[in-house]
Amino acid sequence: MSSDERPPEFRVDLARAGRTNVPEVIFGASKTRAQIESIASRLYAGAGFALATRVAPADGAALAASLPDARYFERAQVLQCGALPRSGQRVAVACAGTSDLPVAEEAARTLDAFGHDVGEYYDVGVAGVHRVLAVRDELDACRAVIVVAGMEGALPSVVAGLIRAPVIAVPTSVGYGASFNGLAALLAMLNSCAPGVCVVNIDNGFGSACVAHKFLSATA
Amino acid sequence: MSSDERPPEFRVDLARAGRTNVPEVIFGASKTRAQIESIASRLYAGAGFALATRVAPADGAALAASLPDARYFERAQVLQCGALPRSGQRVAVACAGTSDLPVAEEAARTLDAFGHDVGEYYDVGVAGVHRVLAVRDELDACRAVIVVAGMEGALPSVVAGLIRAPVIAVPTSVGYGASFNGLAALLAMLNSCAPGVCVVNIDNGFGSACVAHKFLSATA
Amino acid sequence: MSSDERPPEFRVDLARAGRTNVPEVIFGASKTRAQIESIASRLYAGAGFALATRVAPADGAALAASLPDARYFERAQVLQCGALPRSGQRVAVACAGTSDLPVAEEAARTLDAFGHDVGEYYDVGVAGVHRVLAVRDELDACRAVIVVAGMEGALPSVVAGLIRAPVIAVPTSVGYGASFNGLAALLAMLNSCAPGVCVVNIDNGFGSACVAHKFLSATA
Amino acid sequence: MSSDERPPEFRVDLARAGRTNVPEVIFGASKTRAQIESIASRLYAGAGFALATRVAPADGAALAASLPDARYFERAQVLQCGALPRSGQRVAVACAGTSDLPVAEEAARTLDAFGHDVGEYYDVGVAGVHRVLAVRDELDACRAVIVVAGMEGALPSVVAGLIRAPVIAVPTSVGYGASFNGLAALLAMLNSCAPGVCVVNIDNGFGSACVAHKFLSATA
Amino acid sequence: MSSDERPPEFRVDLARAGRTNVPEVIFGASKTRAQIESIASRLYAGAGFALATRVAPADGAALAASLPDARYFERAQVLQCGALPRSGQRVAVACAGTSDLPVAEEAARTLDAFGHDVGEYYDVGVAGVHRVLAVRDELDACRAVIVVAGMEGALPSVVAGLIRAPVIAVPTSVGYGASFNGLAALLAMLNSCAPGVCVVNIDNGFGSACVAHKFLSATA
Amino acid sequence: MSSDERPPEFRVDLARAGRTNVPEVIFGASKTRAQIESIASRLYAGAGFALATRVAPADGAALAASLPDARYFERAQVLQCGALPRSGQRVAVACAGTSDLPVAEEAARTLDAFGHDVGEYYDVGVAGVHRVLAVRDELDACRAVIVVAGMEGALPSVVAGLIRAPVIAVPTSVGYGASFNGLAALLAMLNSCAPGVCVVNIDNGFGSACVAHKFLSATA
Amino acid sequence: MSSDERPPEFRVDLARAGRTNVPEVIFGASKTRAQIESIASRLYAGAGFALATRVAPADGAALAASLPDARYFERAQVLQCGALPRSGQRVAVACAGTSDLPVAEEAARTLDAFGHDVGEYYDVGVAGVHRVLAVRDELDACRAVIVVAGMEGALPSVVAGLIRAPVIAVPTSVGYGASFNGLAALLAMLNSCAPGVCVVNIDNGFGSACVAHKFLSATA
Amino acid sequence: MSSDERPPEFRVDLARAGRTNVPEVIFGASKTRAQIESIASRLYAGAGFALATRVAPADGAALAASLPDARYFERAQVLQCGALPRSGQRVAVACAGTSDLPVAEEAARTLDAFGHDVGEYYDVGVAGVHRVLAVRDELDACRAVIVVAGMEGALPSVVAGLIRAPVIAVPTSVGYGASFNGLAALLAMLNSCAPGVCVVNIDNGFGSACVAHKFLSATA
Repeated sequence: MSSDERPPEFRVDLARAGRTNVPEVIFGASKTRAQIESIASRLYAGAGFALATRVAPADGAALAASLPDARYFERAQVLQCGALPRSGQRVAVACAGTSDLPVAEEAARTLDAFGHDVGEYYDVGVAGVHRVLAVRDELDACRAVIVVAGMEGALPSVVAGLIRAPVIAVPTSVGYGASFNGLAALLAMLNSCAPGVCVVNIDNGFGSACVAHKFLSATA
Repeated sequence: MSSDERPPEFRVDLARAGRTNVPEVIFGASKTRAQIESIASRLYAGAGFALATRVAPADGAALAASLPDARYFERAQVLQCGALPRSGQRVAVACAGTSDLPVAEEAARTLDAFGHDVGEYYDVGVAGVHRVLAVRDELDACRAVIVVAGMEGALPSVVAGLIRAPVIAVPTSVGYGASFNGLAALLAMLNSCAPGVCVVNIDNGFGSACVAHKFLSATA
Repeated sequence: MSSDERPPEFRVDLARAGRTNVPEVIFGASKTRAQIESIASRLYAGAGFALATRVAPADGAALAASLPDARYFERAQVLQCGALPRSGQRVAVACAGTSDLPVAEEAARTLDAFGHDVGEYYDVGVAGVHRVLAVRDELDACRAVIVVAGMEGALPSVVAGLIRAPVIAVPTSVGYGASFNGLAALLAMLNSCAPGVCVVNIDNGFGSACVAHKFLSATA
Repeated sequence: MSSDERPPEFRVDLARAGRTNVPEVIFGASKTRAQIESIASRLYAGAGFALATRVAPADGAALAASLPDARYFERAQVLQCGALPRSGQRVAVACAGTSDLPVAEEAARTLDAFGHDVGEYYDVGVAGVHRVLAVRDELDACRAVIVVAGMEGALPSVVAGLIRAPVIAVPTSVGYGASFNGLAALLAMLNSCAPGVCVVNIDNGFGSACVAHKFLSATA
Repeated sequence: MSSDERPPEFRVDLARAGRTNVPEVIFGASKTRAQIESIASRLYAGAGFALATRVAPADGAALAASLPDARYFERAQVLQCGALPRSGQRVAVACAGTSDLPVAEEAARTLDAFGHDVGEYYDVGVAGVHRVLAVRDELDACRAVIVVAGMEGALPSVVAGLIRAPVIAVPTSVGYGASFNGLAALLAMLNSCAPGVCVVNIDNGFGSACVAHKFLSATA
Repeated sequence: MSSDERPPEFRVDLARAGRTNVPEVIFGASKTRAQIESIASRLYAGAGFALATRVAPADGAALAASLPDARYFERAQVLQCGALPRSGQRVAVACAGTSDLPVAEEAARTLDAFGHDVGEYYDVGVAGVHRVLAVRDELDACRAVIVVAGMEGALPSVVAGLIRAPVIAVPTSVGYGASFNGLAALLAMLNSCAPGVCVVNIDNGFGSACVAHKFLSATA
Repeated sequence: MSSDERPPEFRVDLARAGRTNVPEVIFGASKTRAQIESIASRLYAGAGFALATRVAPADGAALAASLPDARYFERAQVLQCGALPRSGQRVAVACAGTSDLPVAEEAARTLDAFGHDVGEYYDVGVAGVHRVLAVRDELDACRAVIVVAGMEGALPSVVAGLIRAPVIAVPTSVGYGASFNGLAALLAMLNSCAPGVCVVNIDNGFGSACVAHKFLSATA
Repeated sequence: MSSDERPPEFRVDLARAGRTNVPEVIFGASKTRAQIESIASRLYAGAGFALATRVAPADGAALAASLPDARYFERAQVLQCGALPRSGQRVAVACAGTSDLPVAEEAARTLDAFGHDVGEYYDVGVAGVHRVLAVRDELDACRAVIVVAGMEGALPSVVAGLIRAPVIAVPTSVGYGASFNGLAALLAMLNSCAPGVCVVNIDNGFGSACVAHKFLSATA
């Protein structure tokens, strides 16, 4: 490899947390295990905290063993070193079932790492609306509710019509055929007839946690 | 106008009702008042029944006055001459509010003209799911439920998860922006997580009534 | 694996059959063999019946051996434990040829498991309309006809124009290029000029069987 | 108007007929009556023949009166001055009904102007396939069959499966909702399961006539 | 008009504010002046507050004169009767220029009616990023920032990278050609590389205000 | 495998050639080697001719060895047993380069198997229009020209403007990014400004050969 | 109108020309005549130059009369006050015919106002490639060639393969059906097989002139 | 392999560089190592220069060893034999981070091979606009700036608003969900509110370098 082929150094932005309330987080999907380790080490050394999402199980287990103060959450594919201070505020994460779990867990683990309490409601679907009603009061007591749904993406509308807490909707690519990899759920959520629903990208559990975190932090 | 400019004669298919259980019905949107009158007259003369959809109010009022045994329903834009025999069977038509009414009414008036009893439930939306629950037993007592919805198109999933009757979903072009003229609702309905939902074209209230009618007739 | 990594328990909804006329059915595509076995066992224990779709052949063969009263249908990728009572009613499943067979068989096996008689018409395509005409009377004698088609998706229109029984259209992802994985067939079916055609999601043979089943059950 | 605002002269390409077998034809939709008149006069002066499509009725009537040897066909929106020599060959134009007539007539009048005999079959739809069968032998006796269809666009497949003559399919923008202004019909035709169907642009009756004409001319 | 043509009564949902923190608001686009007047009167009578969006100028001026305690904001197309109590909390609304003003103003007037202080920043565009930087500290001092943008929809990413307050992004249909009526801006916002951006429907200024309001209310 | 798992017999339609001028041809992409062998044997036994497209190299080599009178063309992925009588007519196949070769060769080998002479012009691209001009007279001497192109799909327009022979355009999925798997080329070809261009599905070299064959046969 | 309804002042950015080499230009499509007059006056007062695009004829004629040093170009819908210094450099603008003229003229008038010489080639289409070849040397002598095309958008590829000058491609919304308002041309241009073609938005003649201007200015 | 299966000879177009200022460059993605070697050898023999893009690492390393005067750049996937003369002109390539590096490097290596100096700015993203501002003067000193961006594709607008040099925007397929493989970035760039941005195909780093090269060459 010639000198112009040296990989460029990843610049770590330790000022981002102060500037935007969200620290730099590693998107693991396009990085090697060595790259994740290097960046996480530097972030943890600088701020006592590092988080990486979309880390594959084999990498996650190895990194949890080698990095300081580290845990790996396989279902969420999240790697965490250290944690931010507890906020004492509660956010719910809701979805209809097992297919949406990876995205819901990415949101939940990010919220927890950012210091918030998380309520997990993982079997509330529109096709059995009694289950949603059964947890209505618990959802209503949270500061925000992240609703994760694939297929027809109808759950955010139902939840938002029942509670005072704001709803952050996360479409997932769960489905087939005319779900078009999450497009159907995304469009449904953007067209919610219940006012006060906001939306993030398909499968973006991490992003939904950031939205909740920024709102909670802005009001601290 | 030269001879090759004579409008071709509309062929009236009186055998269709016997062959397919659905009589020939006039799609008024692309026809002149005179054309509707001519075809309706021939259909009524042959079978004692004629139905036209998408008839504009000015035309509808005039035709209701000139055609035999005729009534015009403005909100549904439906013109009816005579009626088919009563079946004694009941079909519900449900939607969330006033915007979806023209499509819901097209379905309701077609069902009524075809001889079925119609239950109208026009203020049941997903953003206020208690209203759906309040009429659950009434919907469940019908032979079929036509659910009309625009925007996120979530109502059919909620209804189908609550009742034994089959759900025929009609997406409408109600909405703006990312509703893409009904595409969002259409995709949502096709991806319903509640099994047993079938779908017709955007704004096709008439078509949904035909689906119900064919099922009810096939079982008579 | 830490304690917060325990997989959540699958909740089995034994009340669904009573509430919606369709029992809970396992969507096998996103589940492990162990998960399918666990859920099927509990469903069969509770109701004497379990059904799973999209079960891969290796899993299907093994599960058919280990589960009680079980059979696996490879072409349909359907696993069945027990059966619902026979209804004595007949539904046809029609398609043009071998490419659409997996979807057609998913519909047929689901209908049979739900207790209905199934007529299979698997070589009736629009490019050889004489074959459709040859079975017209048989199709017309059924309570409903499920028509499965990929590519241009024209078969439901032709069938619906010939018979009194209602048509449930299933677009398939069979085709290439401008079929866009079934979108062409889906759009064609939604725009059918034959009134009384309803549509389900691309490749959703199971869903089409549920539509027929709910209609037949609603009229029992 | 300053000198740089003079409209550019339309260049008339009298060599095109010799080079490509299709003479230059005026697309009237984006031109003023004066522009159509000017170009048609020059074309007729040079070659004894001029044709303009998409000419609005008011313009067409006036131009038929002012131009030499001119006729206007209102339903086709075609203006014709003179005619090409008769070929003695026959092409059929088929469609399902009145909505598709303007496009079918544009094809038919262009074919006639180019010298071919035209068989018009304007009530053959897939929802009544017996009407197609009734004219099968007539269609089969033509050198080519232009099939015009909107909505689900299924007619070309049915026709192509019945006859030896090639089928040129013209999707139309007839329909609503999920027809997406002819996209559904276009995709259906491109995915025809009957080999030997070729397709032109949505509503392009003129183009379909050119395809037939080039094939017939190439073989003369 | 026969009795079955009586318009259905609009049901006013006075309980919605208590249940969801957002009172029922009238979507004026699809209603007549008389309908808006009737519903606003009942809402105001019940809760001392009524709000209508998408009210055309002629209707707005007349209704502002006839309804109690009413004001009409032409640029926002918002009609307001009474007001909710002041929250003392500040939300910014930012956009690049005059084309996006109607949507930005719909957001601003809704926020003000719901009791929040509004900071308007209407000339901050990505093509002149110095203007954004000039107001950075003011934006950062708000509890939330609503960013309205058409065309390439890049402003939310730039703002979210600069401040701690959360960003609610509103794509607008401003643009032409490949903006596809706001689709380009919508997709850009959903893919923001700045974490913590959430999105509402195209042109949905009202919805963005509801998102901010629910977050602020949930934390009061 | 239980009895209801027996694969359905492929029905061979020996009458199709007489009815439609195109014999039944095997689409190999979705069939096993054994299935192709079985069908090809029966077709050859019945008509002395069999053709299969999209046959993978390993299968093709084996089948060419086992089937009677068989050849396999690897670049075209075409398997041929026997041949139809020579027509003495010539069709050109043109494309811009090596990427489009598989589709062009599928067309060429099909034409040859159907009995026509084929002129191959495989390095004529729009970015070097002199190469097109260099073979203009040869193309013009053919009865039809099949033009295969990916990326921007411009070649059919250029060719059609130069010659009298009709142009059958085949878009290919060659390209990346905004080619959207051939959509860009397909749309370009449908919008050709050169009259007399007709289009088949993306990558459908076989279909283009059938169009040419039906035209040539209809005029024999 | 209450005080909060005062229209916001348009901020004129006189520094933009120095910062970006392109002065602020008025997009007239969404502005009133009075707004255009006010902004143009201030721009002209500050810099001796003002330009507005998409100005409707009635407004253009009036403004040309009232503004200082002003001319209006109707075909281009461009209003110009003063001019930038001549650069002595030549840019060509090419298109196939009259339908694309408004966009081509918008580019040409902008280039001229920015000080460049413009060569107009308005009848060079791919369907008559001899016309392109006839002006090849003239195009090749320009510093850049703007190629404007609707429908299949093939002209930029042909031109770019013939000359050394760079090609800036402008898709137009000219066409119908599957042109999808310029999408077909846009995709074709983005997929050009001729290297060195760059693309701007549909109908964006002004933008193409800015691209050429920035390149020529950067090298002055 | 029979004689008609011989691969056609690749024709090497040594005249292209003189005709279009861009030499023939090998697109390696669809070619074997042997094909690349053969063409590169002939190009280098004829002109002392050969360039291949999208060459996989294994092939690149081998070819760099076997071809004369050859180097392989792994990150760019570019193989270079010889080089064009230095122009002494400088072009910047900018992107936000490591994901876009392959495309940025393809552009940079092509520019360098074509003889231009390249400034690499690989950590300038819109979410940290201070980094863009920090290099503003350096970018402004270049003759052109190639801006590579995925996800929301906002960087070109920000850069183009800051500098006089023209911006060539390259959307990348970096992202997930609603990025739709680069469509979001592509649309954003086409709708840039900063005048003077031109766009090439998704991931087309090579094409962006050709645009810059043609502009620089045209002005030499």
